[in-house]
Amino acid sequence: MRSDSSRRSRGAQKIGEVLGQTPEQVERSLGDVAPQLATYVIETIYGEIYQSSTLDLRTRQVVTVAALATLGTAAPQLRTHIGGALRCGVTREELIEIMVQLVPYVGVAAAINGVAACREVFAADDKR
Amino acid sequence: MRSDSSRRSRGAQKIGEVLGQTPEQVERSLGDVAPQLATYVIETIYGEIYQSSTLDLRTRQVVTVAALATLGTAAPQLRTHIGGALRCGVTREELIEIMVQLVPYVGVAAAINGVAACREVFAADDKR
Amino acid sequence: MRSDSSRRSRGAQKIGEVLGQTPEQVERSLGDVAPQLATYVIETIYGEIYQSSTLDLRTRQVVTVAALATLGTAAPQLRTHIGGALRCGVTREELIEIMVQLVPYVGVAAAINGVAACREVFAADDKR
Amino acid sequence: MRSDSSRRSRGAQKIGEVLGQTPEQVERSLGDVAPQLATYVIETIYGEIYQSSTLDLRTRQVVTVAALATLGTAAPQLRTHIGGALRCGVTREELIEIMVQLVPYVGVAAAINGVAACREVFAADDKR
Amino acid sequence: MRSDSSRRSRGAQKIGEVLGQTPEQVERSLGDVAPQLATYVIETIYGEIYQSSTLDLRTRQVVTVAALATLGTAAPQLRTHIGGALRCGVTREELIEIMVQLVPYVGVAAAINGVAACREVFAADDKR
Amino acid sequence: MRSDSSRRSRGAQKIGEVLGQTPEQVERSLGDVAPQLATYVIETIYGEIYQSSTLDLRTRQVVTVAALATLGTAAPQLRTHIGGALRCGVTREELIEIMVQLVPYVGVAAAINGVAACREVFAADDKR
Repeated sequence: MRSDSSRRSRGAQKIGEVLGQTPEQVERSLGDVAPQLATYVIETIYGEIYQSSTLDLRTRQVVTVAALATLGTAAPQLRTHIGGALRCGVTREELIEIMVQLVPYVGVAAAINGVAACREVFAADDKR
Repeated sequence: MRSDSSRRSRGAQKIGEVLGQTPEQVERSLGDVAPQLATYVIETIYGEIYQSSTLDLRTRQVVTVAALATLGTAAPQLRTHIGGALRCGVTREELIEIMVQLVPYVGVAAAINGVAACREVFAADDKR
Repeated sequence: MRSDSSRRSRGAQKIGEVLGQTPEQVERSLGDVAPQLATYVIETIYGEIYQSSTLDLRTRQVVTVAALATLGTAAPQLRTHIGGALRCGVTREELIEIMVQLVPYVGVAAAINGVAACREVFAADDKR
Repeated sequence: MRSDSSRRSRGAQKIGEVLGQTPEQVERSLGDVAPQLATYVIETIYGEIYQSSTLDLRTRQVVTVAALATLGTAAPQLRTHIGGALRCGVTREELIEIMVQLVPYVGVAAAINGVAACREVFAADDKR
Repeated sequence: MRSDSSRRSRGAQKIGEVLGQTPEQVERSLGDVAPQLATYVIETIYGEIYQSSTLDLRTRQVVTVAALATLGTAAPQLRTHIGGALRCGVTREELIEIMVQLVPYVGVAAAINGVAACREVFAADDKR
Repeated sequence: MRSDSSRRSRGAQKIGEVLGQTPEQVERSLGDVAPQLATYVIETIYGEIYQSSTLDLRTRQVVTVAALATLGTAAPQLRTHIGGALRCGVTREELIEIMVQLVPYVGVAAAINGVAACREVFAADDKR
């Protein structure tokens, strides 16, 4: 993927708002093996998809947390987006209740694992 | 599952708010083979889980639509909850954008199938 | 896959017991495009895996029905194995209750779809 | 979810039979962040769903182990229910064979991971 | 997503090579409800991801067919990419064997459903 | 499963080519609890499915890596088959690009986890 400077700068701003990170931090966390993935995250996800104002950031994070907890195979990304949800105004109590709302549709194990992810993120936040 | 009249009446009210249905319609739609499932839906899902005010109904429906579209194996339930989301104040444009938000996390096929489900529900609503 | 006549004859007998079919029917139902899949079903699944007496056929069918209903992506195979479960002594009421048991672990949509599959198989049996 | 004392006491008894635990142990293991999940487990799963006598406990545990091993995203819950299966009369050999039965329908990785879960539970039991 | 004319023209060329379609056909097939999805498909998937020469088109289609058949929830997209694989030099026999290779890792139902998708695409091709 | 010496010897040779292992190593890695699984891996997967020359080993490994990365629940097996892919001529750059190709169909988390698996295998290879 060719990097595009205007998408990158728009994405950079949105990553700051949602994750409280810089694009350089995203690039470091994804490692040097697959720079295409960092470009995708910064420019396509945050530089394009998150740019539409049809959904506010709070709702986008609710969708993302629900989707990642449903998948059950994306533990690090779930924790990242729980942190993003807190930053976009979703409260701790709401995050727990999102996991409870998943119980009847995705099952109790997904909800328990989602609550465990919340607890880890909350504890890390409390230590700062 | 033993039916419990106070949970049932609380559930009945919530089913009306979310789905615009009566418990009897839920029972009929689930058929007569598994009355336990109708009891679970009416009393546990709507009579208990949906009773907590920690999440407003709009957010619950966003979570449910995101989860069902992520699963990809629950087409009839996804359509039901897209209808419920509209009834709880999620707009058509927001529902489409929820599917777009799923693209990077769940894949473009889930989003396309989710948009197709939206389109069916919107068309059925327009015919009424 | 090379066909092996002794595995095939053992598999043929077991397919008769579990599905009430002949190997030729299995071959026809899988079509002529992928004879390897028919060989796998007849010789590996029924000629080897089902041969072990550690699990009785009833329990094997309970496992298979639970697994296929959990996957949610194998509707024709789920119906086939619901039929196999009935043939191996699982009752209709037990099959419905297996779907109910999946509710808390896999979600209510999987259970509803599983009950719908049961209902189709029961209705087809009643017509014979 | 409002707690209901008669469902709780019925659930408590069933949790003892299946898991050899008290409701308080379940509550502690699920942590203090989401008491609703503990209520769901104790009162809905064990106090309602497990109460029906249509399936014996042995069969319920076979279903649950098959479903959790199929999901592949619920490792702690799979270990818990392998332990429950042993307690309800499923033998070690049968549990291993359940995983083998999953091979053709869910794939060999799910079976290998399921066997690894069995081995952990068996080893922990042997240490007691 | 803002459309970008140079990505669009690169994507258009690649869609022609892989799917034998024009961007306008992609847009029509995705309907008018979610133009963002068409932009994503044309500009991000074909205009960026498919542009890298690290993988030849044949291998990309093998990856895509294997992934979609594994998901099991993307039947229309699987058929589209089976067609794309044929166009990129994967033979019919190879496509069937790809499904057979999935048997031990994803299960026989996914393989059977994948073979059925192949058969539909082959039959439609034969009719032209 | 009854072991069959000719399938075993054919499987042994293929395991050497693909994984660089002996059947005894496979048996040890799968442990002594479930010898049936080792027999399945050696005789059915490598002794039968891998024997067909319709797909070359390189393509088989591309399929297997794509499938396991899509599942997201088979981390040890994914690493094993990334190693097998390298041995069958897939380059490191191609393996990373396979994960990038999964982004639009399976989601960015699967791709990131797949790249992480690649990085572990590459690092272990570099240490030898």
